[in-house]
Amino acid sequence: MENTYDLVIIGTGPAGYTASIYASRYKLKNVIIGEIFGGYVTQAHIVANFPSEEEIEGTKLAEKMHNHAKNLGAKIIQQKVINIKKNDNNFEITTDDNKTFTGKAVIIAIGTKQRKLGLKNESEFVGRGVSYCTTCDAMFFKNKTVAVLGGSDSANKASLYLTDIAKNVYQIYRGKELRGDKKQIESILENKKIQVIYETNIIELQGDKKLQKIKLDKEFNGNLELEIDGLFIEIGSEPEYGLIEKLNLKTDDLGFIIVEKDQKTNVEGVFAAGDITNASGNFRQIITACAQGAISANSAYNYIKSK
Amino acid sequence: MENTYDLVIIGTGPAGYTASIYASRYKLKNVIIGEIFGGYVTQAHIVANFPSEEEIEGTKLAEKMHNHAKNLGAKIIQQKVINIKKNDNNFEITTDDNKTFTGKAVIIAIGTKQRKLGLKNESEFVGRGVSYCTTCDAMFFKNKTVAVLGGSDSANKASLYLTDIAKNVYQIYRGKELRGDKKQIESILENKKIQVIYETNIIELQGDKKLQKIKLDKEFNGNLELEIDGLFIEIGSEPEYGLIEKLNLKTDDLGFIIVEKDQKTNVEGVFAAGDITNASGNFRQIITACAQGAISANSAYNYIKSK
Repeated sequence: MENTYDLVIIGTGPAGYTASIYASRYKLKNVIIGEIFGGYVTQAHIVANFPSEEEIEGTKLAEKMHNHAKNLGAKIIQQKVINIKKNDNNFEITTDDNKTFTGKAVIIAIGTKQRKLGLKNESEFVGRGVSYCTTCDAMFFKNKTVAVLGGSDSANKASLYLTDIAKNVYQIYRGKELRGDKKQIESILENKKIQVIYETNIIELQGDKKLQKIKLDKEFNGNLELEIDGLFIEIGSEPEYGLIEKLNLKTDDLGFIIVEKDQKTNVEGVFAAGDITNASGNFRQIITACAQGAISANSAYNYIKSK
Repeated sequence: MENTYDLVIIGTGPAGYTASIYASRYKLKNVIIGEIFGGYVTQAHIVANFPSEEEIEGTKLAEKMHNHAKNLGAKIIQQKVINIKKNDNNFEITTDDNKTFTGKAVIIAIGTKQRKLGLKNESEFVGRGVSYCTTCDAMFFKNKTVAVLGGSDSANKASLYLTDIAKNVYQIYRGKELRGDKKQIESILENKKIQVIYETNIIELQGDKKLQKIKLDKEFNGNLELEIDGLFIEIGSEPEYGLIEKLNLKTDDLGFIIVEKDQKTNVEGVFAAGDITNASGNFRQIITACAQGAISANSAYNYIKSK
């Protein structure tokens, strides 16, 4: 009985927290289950576009949302959800530690995971020079030479953040010019610690136990090889498929959950919110994830009430 | 030249401010023009569901957003927009004080206006006992007897707020039970200062210069008349039509602007965000308005860049 809820929210990012805040205001007994408290936001060094917060650390913003949800009555559990099953009248959710939760409705808000580069020895170098989370790992590269792969917002943020720590930063991008937030791009181009290498790909990772060199598909300063201590791969993210498959949720060509305007999925009683959906015109931001969380909670409330 | 912008944002509420925050981060020269700084948010006594802010005064939240937009470089102008015209390459926006602004793209974020009750002498009593803005006018009714008309979130909020100020509060609602935020409803039902009168309408306003009595369509405590000092009409809101008509924007049956997932309207270069649109599954909240503002700025940026 203690694990019986009106609403089970899977995912502890802005979408999940906001869904819970709204659900609690509607007096739905709700639980949020997720692996990383704060989700992807915690990887943002500074957030400057969340309206009302001119500049706030990602971890701080996540913490404020976490506490907001918690103080309104949500149970928040740090676990990976490994299974979900639809029964006649409810959903059964199982976590990694073999606990089972039931809910009358479910909100899927598990976000996305970082895209890998796809090179053959890439996994061997993870934690030995290769990282997918700049804010997590930057501190290990104090006064070192690092490279960032990518040319969009997350890569740009990563490069700028690294200039506070590393000696110098190469930003390697296959495109002709950086994309996204223009103020950020301006800061990169003005920053003497950053050198942007355009129209270039990484084709090989080299090193003895630790990453030491990367091989490029185009010469840079007359050389195909670049000596670096760390490589931060920031080339976007993709949905987590596990739960999507278990529920047979409909997805678009890129794997994002297709939702209606009210965040309904194709499965009755299942709603989705945040980066894992195709909502908000595929514009994935903290503020859009929050809004989707609120809408999904409202829809879940209407659904539960109608039963 | 000084009134020439990349983007003109009409509306100084959460949608307009957030649109501007994103536009400024994209380095679009932008202006926000609106009549009431903060918009409808300023009418909320306490906001408890904006994620990360457990409890914040509506005016304070609006101010934080205003400053955020301003400090990122937005020009913010307090005026009513009275005309808008689409030329071949830009839009021409005219304000009440006869100033003209031009923009390559426009975001309409002017929100909604409070719905009137529709009784024949209603307008005569405005400012003399009848109000459409509880947070604006509640203070005039210290230790008085007031009534709130309505049974949804805004009416519920109004009743609770009034208990801090007035002697007692009648909440008159045509429905059988109050709707919306359950915690709020619980607080109303527990509050001895509030008496909810269900399944009842107001059919007449009476008074000599000032409102003194209202007539009900059903007896309450054996009487069809109720003596009150103030009446707060909180029966929802409807879109502002003026600019919608001038631009020939497509609307739904209720008059809300029809937008695509990326907040595009049917007119090229015109985007819309916030309460005036049919987006977010018609769930109108501060957080959804903000998200729509962000999306519309991103779409306006893509539109301007593509020209």
